[in-house]
Amino acid sequence: MVKHMLKHHAEAADGVFHALADANRRAIVDHLTRGPATVSELARLLGVTVAATVQHLRVLQASELVRSEKAGRVRTCQIDPSGLRRAEEWLRLRRTTWERRLDRLGDVLGESADERRSPPTNTTEETRS
Amino acid sequence: MVKHMLKHHAEAADGVFHALADANRRAIVDHLTRGPATVSELARLLGVTVAATVQHLRVLQASELVRSEKAGRVRTCQIDPSGLRRAEEWLRLRRTTWERRLDRLGDVLGESADERRSPPTNTTEETRS
Repeated sequence: MVKHMLKHHAEAADGVFHALADANRRAIVDHLTRGPATVSELARLLGVTVAATVQHLRVLQASELVRSEKAGRVRTCQIDPSGLRRAEEWLRLRRTTWERRLDRLGDVLGESADERRSPPTNTTEETRS
Repeated sequence: MVKHMLKHHAEAADGVFHALADANRRAIVDHLTRGPATVSELARLLGVTVAATVQHLRVLQASELVRSEKAGRVRTCQIDPSGLRRAEEWLRLRRTTWERRLDRLGDVLGESADERRSPPTNTTEETRS
């Protein structure tokens, strides 16, 4: 069940990590969290051409990190929270799977330590008699 | 303040997204969340050479997603939660910054709608008189 969920999320989060592996694309996401921006504003922010910015935006849109709308000749971009949530969920699921395993391990080690501390019942009886 | 925090996290999460952009490296992380494994076990899992696996592990270790220990000739790998947490935090901070902005926008739009719905005070007085 967990294995199936992990597999599903692995595929779904695929493009998001690729998209965020690039510093310019992370800068676009950073900027848009504070409000929408046009393509030319983003190009100015990055100090790259509009064509290069459009390429980055395509990657971000493909992994649902950004969405955009054209009104007349101006394209305005804004955050699409789906991609952020999907990547967050991918990481959270793995971190909690790992933490639960560690908790179970801690419980087992705790039980063995208790067994070592308290002497077996028959030893106690021998001491008493 | 938020801008500074965003910048700090952008740099810190840098390598983690690059590391997770690769399907084989994500498969290693997936596998290790369920327990430690040796390098040869991971190589078998991926169906690649030990040398290629070692390369992937270097990238994962550099971004604190995996740690490893050598005992004799066997290197055992396990999850390092630091990298997972850092990437999760990077995403969460951006998502919540965006959500807070949306909430504030909703409040402002709600207020304007209220103003439109309730007629101005002097109009009410005129109706009464």
